[in-house]
Amino acid sequence: MAATRRILDFLAQTPNDGPCLVVDLDVVRDNYEAFAHALPDSRIFYAVKANPAPEVLSLLASLGSSFDTASVAEIEMALAAGATPDRVSFGNTIKKERDIARAHALGISLFAIDCVEEAEKVARAAPGARVFCRVLTDGEGAEWPLSRKFGCTPALAVDVLRASRALGLDAYGVSFHVGSQQCDLSAWDRALSDAANVFQTLAAEGIVLRMVNMGGGFPTRYLRDVPQAEAYGRAIFSALRKHFGNQIPETIIEPGRGMVGNAGVIRSEVVLVSRKSSDDPVRWVYLDIGKFGGLAETMDEAIRYPIVTPRDGDATEPCVLAGPTCDSADVLYEKAPYPLPITLSVGDEVLIEGTGAYTTTYSAVAFNGFPPLRSYAI
Amino acid sequence: MAATRRILDFLAQTPNDGPCLVVDLDVVRDNYEAFAHALPDSRIFYAVKANPAPEVLSLLASLGSSFDTASVAEIEMALAAGATPDRVSFGNTIKKERDIARAHALGISLFAIDCVEEAEKVARAAPGARVFCRVLTDGEGAEWPLSRKFGCTPALAVDVLRASRALGLDAYGVSFHVGSQQCDLSAWDRALSDAANVFQTLAAEGIVLRMVNMGGGFPTRYLRDVPQAEAYGRAIFSALRKHFGNQIPETIIEPGRGMVGNAGVIRSEVVLVSRKSSDDPVRWVYLDIGKFGGLAETMDEAIRYPIVTPRDGDATEPCVLAGPTCDSADVLYEKAPYPLPITLSVGDEVLIEGTGAYTTTYSAVAFNGFPPLRSYAI
Repeated sequence: MAATRRILDFLAQTPNDGPCLVVDLDVVRDNYEAFAHALPDSRIFYAVKANPAPEVLSLLASLGSSFDTASVAEIEMALAAGATPDRVSFGNTIKKERDIARAHALGISLFAIDCVEEAEKVARAAPGARVFCRVLTDGEGAEWPLSRKFGCTPALAVDVLRASRALGLDAYGVSFHVGSQQCDLSAWDRALSDAANVFQTLAAEGIVLRMVNMGGGFPTRYLRDVPQAEAYGRAIFSALRKHFGNQIPETIIEPGRGMVGNAGVIRSEVVLVSRKSSDDPVRWVYLDIGKFGGLAETMDEAIRYPIVTPRDGDATEPCVLAGPTCDSADVLYEKAPYPLPITLSVGDEVLIEGTGAYTTTYSAVAFNGFPPLRSYAI
Repeated sequence: MAATRRILDFLAQTPNDGPCLVVDLDVVRDNYEAFAHALPDSRIFYAVKANPAPEVLSLLASLGSSFDTASVAEIEMALAAGATPDRVSFGNTIKKERDIARAHALGISLFAIDCVEEAEKVARAAPGARVFCRVLTDGEGAEWPLSRKFGCTPALAVDVLRASRALGLDAYGVSFHVGSQQCDLSAWDRALSDAANVFQTLAAEGIVLRMVNMGGGFPTRYLRDVPQAEAYGRAIFSALRKHFGNQIPETIIEPGRGMVGNAGVIRSEVVLVSRKSSDDPVRWVYLDIGKFGGLAETMDEAIRYPIVTPRDGDATEPCVLAGPTCDSADVLYEKAPYPLPITLSVGDEVLIEGTGAYTTTYSAVAFNGFPPLRSYAI
């Protein structure tokens, strides 16, 4: 998670012209290999939305990864990076019918759904395609909030897949997502139990599903240690055995944060350090990046990034950390102030670690006139 | 606030190729004139961050508006629109010293500050410039959260302005912001009382401030009626009389939302309508725009936009409203579900009203591969 030597060397040679993200492709490669090793029987579909940098996609394509995409634009990026259409899934359960048709025209034949209405769109726009139905999970144990936005109950999933078959689609399997930055290994066990129930119910009707898409959720290390890929692999394999016996289906995983989160570091600059009154116990530290410049996942203070400063080792005091825009909501950490060196000063460069995922593309196009987050892959 | 005839005609002629914002410049002109009429003795500094569309800036420049800017890029936009440098304020209290120098080189001589450290930067990079110190307000009565991010206590403001004078700056005045979408007219009274105290304390030391920047906060009409510009004008004028007697200083207002909010309408499309289980009492309605596509102000369900559908008049039921991305946080209204027609269907076009402010520039540059919000000014 810490900045690698390669990142530090690159930054030393790169003039500071506003905040930037640097991703070390060697770390992405290591992460891919750790996933492939931990779950040797699962196909890896990298979640493009986590970081769609062309260099990241090309590297993963060359390593053999498949790709989970959220839009036609992401499908095109995956194909441009060298993936063949059979290695691309249209994993968004919310798709315009004309986008399904465009994906179908590009050769994509694997689609996520979570209701009969979506199955009907796929049946019209991509006849005969394989579909998997997403099942709701409780998201317990995840750090980034998981709403009920995607998926349906297991009972409804049975109806959706049965209807899909009737619509001429290939009822291929079930997917779930245990919640992003999921550190509770038993979350996969609960979800796989639900998935197995859907398999069994439909098998009794003669509809044989073949695939479980176990989604993402694999965490990256921010401030606390997280289980390693091997631990996830063991927990998942034993849950598969438990719920599917000796008829384990094809499986897919969709790491995003776990693939690129720890590969990236953002360099930022302290713009201002101040207090609100002469006896204010809390200092305010303002950076040149904030909630609208790429750190959207600090929303509700959900993700707490490690921050390295040139003054580390000096005594610290709790600070409110905020971004540079004229928006009062652009505050990163306030409810739980962030301890930073008392000596931290205007102009100091800080490194925000673990920022390889869910930063660049979240950044606002021009809020307050600030340009989107610049990104380098090395 | 409702879509004007001109907007409806424009949309009827414009093919639907994803969500778009249309701003009616006639409404912006009406808003400008209402502010100018309601507060004839105040200079209007339009808050560029609310909507920096070149057509909006050019219109306002031609009407005589000045501009409140948050960055060098916004300063350049205001100048490009025809404003002279004396009509531009660098209103962000968080500025890099090199950006202050760039602003100074562009002829800008009016800067916001809220601490001695920022005054020192301005003194070095823009010697002799006019500065105003922002004072904290409680933000009570505002709909968009106002944190303590900007401003200092009135007592510290006295120190900051005194120090500014000692640094060779022109200690010009005091600013405050009562909180965005502020519907409580007495909020200006409380803030003006604080401002007057700063004036009096410094006057006793021979430092004569000349300006009060009363900020923005003027609301636009979303779902509830809001006081009209004239009501604000009367309340503000009577508070100025009360606290400054017959020595009312120069005043500035910085409307943003109040200038453009009701001038814009977003056209969006229903992508999916579904339920999470067969007996789910709540429907989920998914649009092709969400929290990361321009509707960031639905964060914590703060701003509740009026939504017009082609099925209005039919019976309604409460819906969870969500955006199109694969992000579980991309939900607009869930805690307080939104009543929408039961007949609302996939493919229906809806109009999201009152979206002229704080939408386009908030939109993510490419989250999930979706392009930023398209915008037209007519």
